Order: sequence, then C-alpha cells, then structure tokens
Amino acid sequence: MLFRVKDEVLDRPCFWLEDGSLHLIDQRRLPSEVVLIYASTIHGQVEMIRTLAVRGAPAIGSFGACSLALAMQRGEDADEAYSLLLGSRPTAVDLRNCLDEVMEGFRSDGAVGALDAASSVYSRTIDACRQIGEHGAVVIPERGKILTHCNAGALASIDWGTALAPVRIAKRAGREPFVWVSETRPLLQGARLTAWELLQEGIKHRIIVDSASGYLMRKGEVDLVITGADRVCANGDFANKIGTYEKAVIAKELGIPFYVAFPRTTLDLKCLNGDSIPIEVRSPAEIDELGGKRITPMGSEACNPAFDVTPAEYVSGYITENGVFTLEEFLKVIRSLL
Amino acid sequence: MLFRVKDEVLDRPCFWLEDGSLHLIDQRRLPSEVVLIYASTIHGQVEMIRTLAVRGAPAIGSFGACSLALAMQRGEDADEAYSLLLGSRPTAVDLRNCLDEVMEGFRSDGAVGALDAASSVYSRTIDACRQIGEHGAVVIPERGKILTHCNAGALASIDWGTALAPVRIAKRAGREPFVWVSETRPLLQGARLTAWELLQEGIKHRIIVDSASGYLMRKGEVDLVITGADRVCANGDFANKIGTYEKAVIAKELGIPFYVAFPRTTLDLKCLNGDSIPIEVRSPAEIDELGGKRITPMGSEACNPAFDVTPAEYVSGYITENGVFTLEEFLKVIRSLL
Repeated sequence: MLFRVKDEVLDRPCFWLEDGSLHLIDQRRLPSEVVLIYASTIHGQVEMIRTLAVRGAPAIGSFGACSLALAMQRGEDADEAYSLLLGSRPTAVDLRNCLDEVMEGFRSDGAVGALDAASSVYSRTIDACRQIGEHGAVVIPERGKILTHCNAGALASIDWGTALAPVRIAKRAGREPFVWVSETRPLLQGARLTAWELLQEGIKHRIIVDSASGYLMRKGEVDLVITGADRVCANGDFANKIGTYEKAVIAKELGIPFYVAFPRTTLDLKCLNGDSIPIEVRSPAEIDELGGKRITPMGSEACNPAFDVTPAEYVSGYITENGVFTLEEFLKVIRSLL
Repeated sequence: MLFRVKDEVLDRPCFWLEDGSLHLIDQRRLPSEVVLIYASTIHGQVEMIRTLAVRGAPAIGSFGACSLALAMQRGEDADEAYSLLLGSRPTAVDLRNCLDEVMEGFRSDGAVGALDAASSVYSRTIDACRQIGEHGAVVIPERGKILTHCNAGALASIDWGTALAPVRIAKRAGREPFVWVSETRPLLQGARLTAWELLQEGIKHRIIVDSASGYLMRKGEVDLVITGADRVCANGDFANKIGTYEKAVIAKELGIPFYVAFPRTTLDLKCLNGDSIPIEVRSPAEIDELGGKRITPMGSEACNPAFDVTPAEYVSGYITENGVFTLEEFLKVIRSLL
C-alpha cells in the first residue's frame, strides 16, 4: 500500500515485523496524521488490537500470530500469551484460526516452528487478498458504482484488502470504479480509513452517512455492494461491522448484488450458523462522546453492539482467494472441507 | 413540554410568540445547554429555520406561519417574506401549507386575518399532535419497545410530538414504553434531541448508531417502529429523515409494524407519489466535520442528502389526528379530500 508520511512516499503493508517488534500505521490517528508506531511486548500488542490501532479480521489474525510467535521466541508462557491475544476481540475468527496455526508450529518445532507458522500466515494473507482482488474484480463493471461499509481494505488485512481488493484491481485495469463509502459509526472506519486508502490510490469516492445507503441504492446509484467479514459460518451466514445486515436486506429488496469478500482464515467451520457468533459489545462512550466531548444528554445511555450477522440468503456471491462462489457452490466447497 | 433551565423547571412549547418576537429553545445547543433565544426579524427567523435552531416539519410550518404574520403586521412586503420563508427548507411541506393559510387570512382580513390564521395553525398543531398521541398510543403494547429515528417529538412540532406523542401518552397511561433512539447522523437529532426529550419525561430509552436498528429488529428487540414525516403524498409515500426508508424495508422483511405519524399539514395532495418530493441536499461539512474538527481526509468529499422517500407499501399504519389508518383506509380518506 502506497502512502505518504510527511514528504516521503512509502510502500508498506499496514503492519510488519522488524527487529523483534511489530511496526504499524496507527489507525486511531488516521486520517489527520499518518504515524508509524511499534509494540514490542505482548501487553503492548494486545493493547494495539483492543484499542483498534490495528483492526480488521485478517489483519488482527496475522498481527496476533506474529505477536504470539514473538512471545514464544522470548521464551514467555505460550498459553498465557495465546489467551491474552484471543481475548482481545471476540467476533473475528481469524485471530483464533491464526493463533492455532502458530500453536501447531510451536508444538512441532518450538519457537522456530512458531515463527515459521506466523510468517506463513502473514504472507498467505497478503497473497489471498491479492487473489480475492483478482477474482472479485470480475464482478465490477466498467465505471461500476460500489457501496462498501466500514474498512475492509489494506488497513484491515495487511495489504490489498478484502472488499477493497477487487476495487484496487479494477482501478489498475483501467475500469474506473467509484466507491460510496459509508462512514461507519461510531468509530468512522469508513470515513477515516476507507476514504484515506482510496485517496492514496486515486480511486473516486464519496463519503455518506450510514443511513444514506438505502436512498442511493433505491435511486439506482449503486451497482453492487461489497463488504468484508469477521466470521463466515459453515452455512454461509457471516458477521461483519454493525450495519452490514441492513445493507444486505436492502440490496436484496432492490435486486442489487451483494458480495462478501474474505480469505480462508475468516471461515469458521465449527460455527454452523450465525446465531452462534459472539457479538462484541463495545463501550457506550464510543457513541456518547465525539472528540472527547459528550454529545448525548447526561443520564441517557447508549448501547453499542459492534457487529451484526447477515444470513446467507442475502449473499449473491462469496469472493475468496479460490474464486467467487454462489451460496450453493460455497456450501459444496464447505462440505468437502468438513 | 417540561424542561429545566438552570434551576428552574419550565413548561413551554418549543417556540412561542411574545411581544412581536418568536421565542424558542435553541436546538443547535441541546443537549449540552438549554438556551432560550428569540428572533424579531424575518431574516433572523429564516436563519433560525435554516440553521436548525427550530426544525421538524410541523414546527417549521407553524414557526413560518407566525414569522409571516409578524412581517405582515410590521407592514413588510408579504410576497417577499413568503418566498424567503418558503425557500428556507425544501422537503417538509408543512411550511408551504401553513404559509398559504396565512396568505389566505391576509387576503381576506389583512394583517389581523394573517395573525388569526397563524394563531390557528399554532394551536391546531398542538391539538393535532395531542390527538396523534391518543390515537397512536393504542398501537403501543404494555412495555412495548419502540424504535424511532431522528426527532419527531415536541421539539419538532411545538408540543407533544408526532412519533413521540403516542409514546408520551402510553407513558402517562402507565404502560412503561421503552424507546430505541437511533442517533441520526449527521446532525444527531436522535442522540441529542429525542434522548433529551425522553429524559425530561422519564421515559426509558437507549441510544444506538443508525446502523444498529436492523440488528436489534432481527434480535426481536423492537416491537414496532414509529417515525415522523416531512411530506406525505396522495398515494401514501412519504419523505422523512435520511435512513427512514432503510428502517421501513427491514421492518417489513422481519414482520415488524412500521408506523408514520403526522398532522394534516404534512399532507401534500398535489404530490401524487414520492418521486416528486424535492430532497434537500445539505452541506458536506455536516459529515466532514465534528465539533469544528475535520474527521474525513482532506481531498475526500462527502455527499449529504438529508431525506429519503419511503414507499407506501412499507407502511403498516398512518397515525394522524383523525385516527390510525391502514394504507387502504388512508387512500379512501385522500380520495374524499381530492
């Protein structure tokens, strides 16, 4: 991902391992400042995940894997590091899947095996996202108008992105995609992060309030919807940022294709349907306060579920590193994996 | 409406006429401060409407009517005052309907007739809202969980409210209603104004981001949806704050009743369907900035339609001062008026 820090143009993923530390773009400070930070301890790394300095299901999966492998290298307690990391965010399953892979490497080849596994998770995630982009770009028409929600870009998945990877590839193929960016309250990952990523790549876009998606879809201003996912169940239901379900229902009502894009690590084969996905409820302060200032009346309380579940019936296509699948095809693949 | 200013408990409508000026609660400063202000000139009054110091279809209808009658009393040009006021907000039809009534009064009885007409609009609006409350309360079950959007309370309609009037009456009847308040980006009329009104009356509520409505509806946490309207067409389509359409589609998908509450002045019999309602597009700055601070990347643009249209097929009931009507009944009444 290309971006500018002061006068310098960098080509970097959203985080990387260097000298035993994890270096990252601090997503809490985007877009007003581009600041590179690093975390060297397990507690520091957990804090980065918890406070959303690094976020997005595939990114926190890989970030967690690297954090765990580094703790093992330092000779720290593996189980303790594992559960600290696993407890940092509950909804995205990538974290558990990637941590399990590192544990597996550790069991077979100690700290070296763990680091190999983490490296493999890291590079596979980047490759998978690039392939998601190539497969997914096929569904984007010339000058296609795409609606997306939250940030499922390079910032959410090391590089390329999930929902944004097809848009990037379509842009590079000269197809001039246009993106409606829903701002994504309460933390505005759309308005802050997706818009910032699209700006870096020169991809045309407009930011809208989350509530405006239906209006634009009904006006014929949206050709397709693509979102990422935090957990995809064996029956094709999936969890993603709060508001995704609403967009999927409205897209179906209006006959607009709705795609969900994700790598293999977002699959949870043990989860039979969306009802069993744990939904993270975050602090009411994320809604009550803006820029440190209280905006709701003292005495009123907010309720802040961070994710929702979209049933498989609303999905037109599953965009993965292995291709774009209808629900029927997706279920056939899943059955072959079970 | 009861509310506190410093240590004093006041019982006042959201605006009133006193000594040739319009006095109002400044809604731009709620809920952090309760400030009473006044406007004595037509330009000042237009500014109050345009900057949302006073807002809500029935409230701006009556506020406009009073402003016009006062201008006539001062001997100012009636046509100029009329078009200044009419141009202040395009979507809500109450403004035009109420201004026309004052013009009618002026033609038949000069400035005295104009003031009589404005007074009549003012008191009829309060009465209508109270009746909307009484009719609408019937659809709220014991401990019913109501989802509303934006502010359609006393602050939007002089007193009682439209969508909130049935909730107020249900509360007074001891039925302990609970309200999900969707915050209503970009200007947060839900989080700031609806929550504040409900607090004053001791009505239980929780504030949510706009995107969380679908999640809560699907979880069975919403018994019914009630919103206000800015313009109701002859075929039952209606315009309301951006996001209303989405809530109506999801309610229908899940079999949850969706009601729209409005007084007679919100009817536009000349508007045959929702496609001919003008949709106000407001400044991108309302999305780009929060508390004066830029939150979106410099170089990204926002698009800010303030209203959307909900087709009649999504409406379970029209709550008016004359009763609650199904679409079929509503159309019968409309035909009798045409």
